[in-house]
Amino acid sequence: MTSLTDLAISEWLNATPGFSAESLRGRVVAAEAFQMLCPGCVSHGLPQAKAIRQIFPESDVAVIGLHTVFEHHAAMTPVALRAFLHEYRISFPVGVDQPGAGALPVTMGRFGLEGTPSLLLFDRAGSLRARHFGQVHDMVIGAEIAVLLGEAAPAAG
Amino acid sequence: MTSLTDLAISEWLNATPGFSAESLRGRVVAAEAFQMLCPGCVSHGLPQAKAIRQIFPESDVAVIGLHTVFEHHAAMTPVALRAFLHEYRISFPVGVDQPGAGALPVTMGRFGLEGTPSLLLFDRAGSLRARHFGQVHDMVIGAEIAVLLGEAAPAAG
Amino acid sequence: MTSLTDLAISEWLNATPGFSAESLRGRVVAAEAFQMLCPGCVSHGLPQAKAIRQIFPESDVAVIGLHTVFEHHAAMTPVALRAFLHEYRISFPVGVDQPGAGALPVTMGRFGLEGTPSLLLFDRAGSLRARHFGQVHDMVIGAEIAVLLGEAAPAAG
Amino acid sequence: MTSLTDLAISEWLNATPGFSAESLRGRVVAAEAFQMLCPGCVSHGLPQAKAIRQIFPESDVAVIGLHTVFEHHAAMTPVALRAFLHEYRISFPVGVDQPGAGALPVTMGRFGLEGTPSLLLFDRAGSLRARHFGQVHDMVIGAEIAVLLGEAAPAAG
Repeated sequence: MTSLTDLAISEWLNATPGFSAESLRGRVVAAEAFQMLCPGCVSHGLPQAKAIRQIFPESDVAVIGLHTVFEHHAAMTPVALRAFLHEYRISFPVGVDQPGAGALPVTMGRFGLEGTPSLLLFDRAGSLRARHFGQVHDMVIGAEIAVLLGEAAPAAG
Repeated sequence: MTSLTDLAISEWLNATPGFSAESLRGRVVAAEAFQMLCPGCVSHGLPQAKAIRQIFPESDVAVIGLHTVFEHHAAMTPVALRAFLHEYRISFPVGVDQPGAGALPVTMGRFGLEGTPSLLLFDRAGSLRARHFGQVHDMVIGAEIAVLLGEAAPAAG
Repeated sequence: MTSLTDLAISEWLNATPGFSAESLRGRVVAAEAFQMLCPGCVSHGLPQAKAIRQIFPESDVAVIGLHTVFEHHAAMTPVALRAFLHEYRISFPVGVDQPGAGALPVTMGRFGLEGTPSLLLFDRAGSLRARHFGQVHDMVIGAEIAVLLGEAAPAAG
Repeated sequence: MTSLTDLAISEWLNATPGFSAESLRGRVVAAEAFQMLCPGCVSHGLPQAKAIRQIFPESDVAVIGLHTVFEHHAAMTPVALRAFLHEYRISFPVGVDQPGAGALPVTMGRFGLEGTPSLLLFDRAGSLRARHFGQVHDMVIGAEIAVLLGEAAPAAG
């Protein structure tokens, strides 16, 4: 079963040095996999991730972005991503998916993502519990997060 | 504490004869209080109620409308309401709030509604658990319904 | 050729006593034919008529509504229409299309309207120059009005 | 007075070799000045330019884009722009505004643009006739283009 541990990130933006996805364990985690030049990510996926950030308390739900570039690699560099995050007022941590052997980056392959945007939900123990590709209704996401929030936190280990 | 029992309905539309709100006990109930000539109800409240109907299984979540007319009474009669429900493709049961002594209908007074649209959420035992006036994000409503769905059903009585 | 003279109006709302469509001759006239319980009129046609009112000077372009009721007659009475205009903040003159022999009102029949919303554009001489049924892009309407505005006004007669 | 001649373009995309803005003389020209990472350009300016392209005949109205980069220069390179145009299905010619001495590119300076998006309208003779910064209603743009279309074409010369 995939978990937070399987995120392969080459660089974190909007994060303090030493940040890791592992540190989010104990909270529900919503991870928005996107590409900065993907129209559906800009119009739907990222606004939905922002809404999650505004609606749920940060102490209960962590929101992160994953820049999973599988096309136009020369256009969507970390430098370009940094400008994009600034212009679109995205302030949650965004991890750059580690480049893979081919066009597909490592995390995208490990999680079997079909494209962007994709929304991943992890429970408090760090296990992947939902994976949505494309446009999903805000009401569905709200309900799924609430279910995960209702589960007991794992014992410290 | 207010409950499904406190709904005072003079007439049900889109319902089989003998229908009552009491019969919904055991399920979570979302009740959309609206007026057919209220712009915010048409653009936000009723589409949100329709989304609840589409997203959650009917066996778990019941959706009803409450036509709580507190102004323009001569315009928003049951005859006009019936045409409105047809044109706006609203097929869940809609109860006409019982006219009161003054402009305010009975249910609206009992539940202390500030205006329309208002969304009421009842738990499986029939108790009112949330009351929202105006525009509320779909993600919030999704989360609140999921929490109520997670609660144990009351013992049959 | 149909013209402003062919509008058969039983009653004008939002207008001073004695108002007539004839009095608008000399200006370009945009007439929005609608029904108060028609979803496409509420979401598209009437907002477009409001935009025309806001964008073009009133001395050059007159905007009127035509309440062309061809169904649910008992629901869409003048009393109900008055409440509707108040709630939706429609302040331009609205004429009630004269009831006909059958379900279809007189003006609707004379102008061969296919349904609601329909937008009619008359030139400064009062002649019908465009008739649109359903959703038409604002840019198209803006261009058509500008063309009519560019035509010379008719000689006073 | 500024004109098509004042556009300083270092490179045209979506255009046949040898393309120049000069060649558009004789038609009304709508030029959308944008930056690929400007949210208002993506949500408003570029969709409006696409609507102009769809609504007016190409033989009468030419639509071009101007990539006027005045910030995040390292992110919005021609390579990135090419990917952006592909992803956002923009098929009209887009000229890269010639880099200037400082952050501001040459055309942007010459036309006194305040930012992006800005829409420029040129008449058939190639003279600048309208300059809009920010969000402008489609109806206004439709009317302005229609006025320019109504003007006589300049004598060949």
